[in-house]
Amino acid sequence: MNFKLEMDERTREAEQIIQSFLPAETGFQKTVLSAMNYSVLAGGKRLRPILMRETYRLFGGRGEEIKPFMAAIEMVHTYSLVHDDLPAMDNDEYRRGRKTTHVMYGEAMAILAGDGLLNLAFETAARAFETGCDPVLTARALALFARKAGVYGMIGGQCVDIESENGAGVTTEEILVFIHAHKTAALIQSAMMTGAVLAGASESEIQKIEKIAYDIGIAFQIQDDILDVSGTAEELGKPIGSDEKNHKVTYVTLKGMKQAQADQKAFSEEAISLLRSFDDRNLFLETMVEALITRKK
Amino acid sequence: MNFKLEMDERTREAEQIIQSFLPAETGFQKTVLSAMNYSVLAGGKRLRPILMRETYRLFGGRGEEIKPFMAAIEMVHTYSLVHDDLPAMDNDEYRRGRKTTHVMYGEAMAILAGDGLLNLAFETAARAFETGCDPVLTARALALFARKAGVYGMIGGQCVDIESENGAGVTTEEILVFIHAHKTAALIQSAMMTGAVLAGASESEIQKIEKIAYDIGIAFQIQDDILDVSGTAEELGKPIGSDEKNHKVTYVTLKGMKQAQADQKAFSEEAISLLRSFDDRNLFLETMVEALITRKK
Repeated sequence: MNFKLEMDERTREAEQIIQSFLPAETGFQKTVLSAMNYSVLAGGKRLRPILMRETYRLFGGRGEEIKPFMAAIEMVHTYSLVHDDLPAMDNDEYRRGRKTTHVMYGEAMAILAGDGLLNLAFETAARAFETGCDPVLTARALALFARKAGVYGMIGGQCVDIESENGAGVTTEEILVFIHAHKTAALIQSAMMTGAVLAGASESEIQKIEKIAYDIGIAFQIQDDILDVSGTAEELGKPIGSDEKNHKVTYVTLKGMKQAQADQKAFSEEAISLLRSFDDRNLFLETMVEALITRKK
Repeated sequence: MNFKLEMDERTREAEQIIQSFLPAETGFQKTVLSAMNYSVLAGGKRLRPILMRETYRLFGGRGEEIKPFMAAIEMVHTYSLVHDDLPAMDNDEYRRGRKTTHVMYGEAMAILAGDGLLNLAFETAARAFETGCDPVLTARALALFARKAGVYGMIGGQCVDIESENGAGVTTEEILVFIHAHKTAALIQSAMMTGAVLAGASESEIQKIEKIAYDIGIAFQIQDDILDVSGTAEELGKPIGSDEKNHKVTYVTLKGMKQAQADQKAFSEEAISLLRSFDDRNLFLETMVEALITRKK
């Protein structure tokens, strides 16, 4: 298996699926529709839809109902970036080398585009019911999908992140891990657990997937903090040491580089070993997860 | 039947149902949870949940699955107000005599609270599946609920409204009616159609309800424009003639008072007559709709 080629192929497939659920830019409200499409089509690796589909495959899923959910999770991810970039939040003018949505369309339209994408995510996920799927599994997936995106998931993490930045900053490991677990890991959990639920995985399998996705999210974020100190600017595509410059409390500043590396390794190894513990295997998924958490940039 | 007493009773019931689905204000993310509850509990007549339940009753609905949907539509309505009030949108500091959410909690938290409420609306609606309801009807209601709130419903109307205000203003009746049909009527359609679908109404009954809710929304808005010219400040609780002062194009300025009154009457009469045309009747709902569209304030 050539991982890079397979990854490219799956990214292309995810891209096509996502685009098939995007709105046509017509009607009196076409500005908000354009702003939504602009935001979704700004690039991105489509990691969450791919993780969702590969977890679905791990548990033998073969239906069409995964597709609307794949598009939906990318819409949720995208809306969160659009709102995060707003002047009242992180006030970012560029993302992935392109102007952010509010710079292109104005602040009011960016707020509405974010709202529109979040709403469209649920409209789209609800279309899974039209695919002749099991309605009980689909309802369960939808509930889980909603919960992990909301105030007990991603939005909860964003709230604490914003408050930490505006206030005294992150002061404890508990708060930092809460932010990573909710702001980052929750959508990975959403992706992988939705895939597992839709494929009819057992309760204990779904719980294991929840743990794996948590480990991936935390390992990914610790790696982010490590690379900010130890990576090269060329590798990262952003200035090195920017966390320190911004006086940002990170996993490395809280626990030291040595402990951060040890913890990162422990989370990574647990994720991989749990992923290999199922009756069936998905070698592509295992390789993808390894690449995610051991990335050098 | 004493309509006022019955309306008060139903408002209290709706209030209790809504509150039972609001989050506990605990955990690291309690600020966003408080901001969400503050917004929902700022008052409001709970008209949409009541319309939903009464339409459900009209078609013989007797289950529990209506309750999460009642709470969900109030969350959607509330999030739209929170985001509408933001500085980048209407920049309102007060609503119903209380400070708006961004004034109380800051702009970033108001954006997140709105996102949190929209997301929680779908989390809550998805809980309908736990009530032992018909999953196919519930899935259909959920899809419809999502659509009417989104870019082909309420958000679509907000987009055109914002663009009209920032640009040349509303210039044609077609655009004005588009705004009213989407910004106002869509959530009334969502309320009443969700009730009808959940109660197992037939296709033609649901279509009739869609038309009735459209008529109610448009009649309500024309009445709003008429009252701005002909009402008294005391009746309205806001200055008379504020539309004219703001150079706002309204139904009255576009078509003249006489035609506006005639159209308002036609939409109202159609709504009432359609509502009376079903095999079964809900006298409370009929009285409530009449009160809504013939209101003097």
